[in-house]
Amino acid sequence: MSNYPKKLLTLIALLKKLPGIGTKTAERFAFQFLGWSPEQLHQLARELASLKETIVPCEKCGCLKDEEKCSFCTHPQRDTELLCLVSSPKDVYAIEETHAYKGLYHVLGGVLGGQLSPFRGRLSEEAFDLEPLKRRIAELKPQEVILALDSTLEGEATALYLKQELGKWGIKVSRLAFGLPMGSPLDYIDYGTLEKALKGRF
Amino acid sequence: MSNYPKKLLTLIALLKKLPGIGTKTAERFAFQFLGWSPEQLHQLARELASLKETIVPCEKCGCLKDEEKCSFCTHPQRDTELLCLVSSPKDVYAIEETHAYKGLYHVLGGVLGGQLSPFRGRLSEEAFDLEPLKRRIAELKPQEVILALDSTLEGEATALYLKQELGKWGIKVSRLAFGLPMGSPLDYIDYGTLEKALKGRF
Repeated sequence: MSNYPKKLLTLIALLKKLPGIGTKTAERFAFQFLGWSPEQLHQLARELASLKETIVPCEKCGCLKDEEKCSFCTHPQRDTELLCLVSSPKDVYAIEETHAYKGLYHVLGGVLGGQLSPFRGRLSEEAFDLEPLKRRIAELKPQEVILALDSTLEGEATALYLKQELGKWGIKVSRLAFGLPMGSPLDYIDYGTLEKALKGRF
Repeated sequence: MSNYPKKLLTLIALLKKLPGIGTKTAERFAFQFLGWSPEQLHQLARELASLKETIVPCEKCGCLKDEEKCSFCTHPQRDTELLCLVSSPKDVYAIEETHAYKGLYHVLGGVLGGQLSPFRGRLSEEAFDLEPLKRRIAELKPQEVILALDSTLEGEATALYLKQELGKWGIKVSRLAFGLPMGSPLDYIDYGTLEKALKGRF
């Protein structure tokens, strides 16, 4: 509301930049912060101010690291013949949680997700620098490249494009399976997913 | 996830203290912050660190102020014969938006809402210091005290208690009306509200 104290309006405007946070929620957060102790507020302020200095993407694979060495690139037990392409460093941690993959990663683009966006005019080469990926593949010579992208329009577009490009270089390219998510009743599944699950039956 | 960089885990733990923010959302926010520019992060950090120093509750009415003087207590055109009791400074701004009230305010308890909480054992005097309110009323001698509390169990309990107490002092006490919220179809209204709307018909 426009008659809030000015400082509160500034804070609310900043919080609204977070994804899915509208005015009402930003206001609620701001008032919640007013209820925090000065120590808690200073701690959060310190964490935010130092965030980009302590957590940096690995210049090789794009995964996040808060130490000198990247815990993926420099790990002696990772399988260097497998390379998994993801659109965001966040996805790496989701895949790690499965304990089903021991290869290396390569994050496409920046922190917010390097994917083609056909609806927003981000298409193929002009928006997508393949050079770092090419260099990585030339260096690693992986047996297989796994495309682990979102099953969204953007992810699909990116996967199709990359499959085509990597195919030109004669690399085996695989993608994550489509199908039923675990624990879901069949009649709650959309038809598109069900069709994929049928086609991919095993 | 437990294998995030440590700094990220600290930030996520702090963000989870916000109302309605679980691990997934806190993670999403943390990764979003990683995508912010250092300037934006430093600005938010500064706002948070200085929040409690610049915005303080007025020692008289409990409303928030970011200047020397409280914009409500010291406003020459406010009606000093009306006193509106609210449980949180946030509620003051909601009432101000209506432009239907020109009296003064009194915020009960702290920033996070001074209401009785029967389910959590916060009952009457032991949890509720009425002294500041008594002093305020003795000083102002308002014609009417308006209880503008949440229509929740806590708000109801507080309103009943205050009505009883203020009644003892011989003050006219009114409450906000209960009834249909504007723009709502009748068949979407719960029976409790509908009953209130029927009883309060005009």
